[in-house]
Amino acid sequence: MIDMLAMGRQVLAMQGFSRLLGTELIGYGPEGVEMRLPLRDDLGQQNGFAHGGVISYLADNALTFAGGSSLGPAVLTAEYKINYLRPGVGTALVARATVIYAGKTSATCRCDVFSVLDDGTEKLCATAQGTIAKVG
Amino acid sequence: MIDMLAMGRQVLAMQGFSRLLGTELIGYGPEGVEMRLPLRDDLGQQNGFAHGGVISYLADNALTFAGGSSLGPAVLTAEYKINYLRPGVGTALVARATVIYAGKTSATCRCDVFSVLDDGTEKLCATAQGTIAKVG
Amino acid sequence: MIDMLAMGRQVLAMQGFSRLLGTELIGYGPEGVEMRLPLRDDLGQQNGFAHGGVISYLADNALTFAGGSSLGPAVLTAEYKINYLRPGVGTALVARATVIYAGKTSATCRCDVFSVLDDGTEKLCATAQGTIAKVG
Amino acid sequence: MIDMLAMGRQVLAMQGFSRLLGTELIGYGPEGVEMRLPLRDDLGQQNGFAHGGVISYLADNALTFAGGSSLGPAVLTAEYKINYLRPGVGTALVARATVIYAGKTSATCRCDVFSVLDDGTEKLCATAQGTIAKVG
Repeated sequence: MIDMLAMGRQVLAMQGFSRLLGTELIGYGPEGVEMRLPLRDDLGQQNGFAHGGVISYLADNALTFAGGSSLGPAVLTAEYKINYLRPGVGTALVARATVIYAGKTSATCRCDVFSVLDDGTEKLCATAQGTIAKVG
Repeated sequence: MIDMLAMGRQVLAMQGFSRLLGTELIGYGPEGVEMRLPLRDDLGQQNGFAHGGVISYLADNALTFAGGSSLGPAVLTAEYKINYLRPGVGTALVARATVIYAGKTSATCRCDVFSVLDDGTEKLCATAQGTIAKVG
Repeated sequence: MIDMLAMGRQVLAMQGFSRLLGTELIGYGPEGVEMRLPLRDDLGQQNGFAHGGVISYLADNALTFAGGSSLGPAVLTAEYKINYLRPGVGTALVARATVIYAGKTSATCRCDVFSVLDDGTEKLCATAQGTIAKVG
Repeated sequence: MIDMLAMGRQVLAMQGFSRLLGTELIGYGPEGVEMRLPLRDDLGQQNGFAHGGVISYLADNALTFAGGSSLGPAVLTAEYKINYLRPGVGTALVARATVIYAGKTSATCRCDVFSVLDDGTEKLCATAQGTIAKVG
């Protein structure tokens, strides 16, 4: 049996950008993926909130991993769309992505990104939808 | 007369995340915005290409600045969509964004992101379209 | 108490295009909207499936009505994105849309469109996400 | 030599929905596609403007045809995103779509939809971006 979480963490550890940001893979299986990114000053924009690019990065990465749970590890995000709903604040961002539909060579996935507040409660801050494609 | 480029650089310098990544504002005016991001190892994914999240970040930021050229500095990206076309490679990424349509409180903008190769030629690597909203 | 379903049906009946296509409003309330469109030959494309434009129309309309459930009747779809997952087939299409997040002047909504097969079972054929804006 | 315009018109004539709406293929070649849809009452929404679903349909169809100019006739729209910019008004809608990037099995295309006013001038009313996929 494949340990998807361990395998996913290996892939994540190979992403220089994910190491720079400090992303953690919390859960990974057929039912979806959960990633967590602790917030710090150098992930912010000019108003002190998490930069939109950080939220997008996390959504993009979670979408790719979700697609990989159906299509195998050799995947990439072909395209996605994101709506920012509330500022990214608090101690961390958490992204949860699932597969909506998987074909043989591509999967359509959805991802919600939440702000984790000081007391541990979560607030939805962005929602994304995109296509993950098998490579090669 | 407002020096948009100088003002834009001030805003960019206030973004911790843009400082972390090393983004440069090359051009900024009513005709659009150009941003440049030198590539380095810790902006990559597991295959050595620029991480999709880096490309998305740059597109998102350029879209926001483009919208700001019409709506004023207090803006944010409400939503956008990006298609990844080719891997992000070479020495830098360059994003160029323009306003397609501007109303009073929102603007629809488009952004192309290019890989800058060693010889200075550019290859389109992603294209994005989104809505920038005036804040407050 | 406002009868949302009756009001929604009045609005739908005022849409010449919805009358041309034969769209029915099945459910409408704070929890979301359900629209149904019986399929017939002149809603098809060249392979006999429902035309993508028909599926998009239904998603767009359901998104707008969903947004209207939060923002009031004077709304329009500002933008949306749709992924086609399976061909639109069977006796009818059904679209179900809900509000993900509502602010004062705009709402982000999601919509799933299903094919209704001869035996009444449903198959997801498209999923959409978009922004509904208050007018005026 | 293939007469793309004649071939495209054959495909369009096979789409029951395009016949119902009255869509015309004006131009079709490697450089892109142009479609025209005369407006009439039963293409409207409750305020007398062209229904968003009509605009979406036209963008979707033009995107598919544009993709087909690179990938061959067996294509479908996998996904797209549209921003509505101004109401669809006047005597007709015109959609112009081009290929941004074409690979072997998919193409990313862009489409602008214009209102054609009584005096023949055009006003941009929507802009779309999407992925066209080769079938089979």
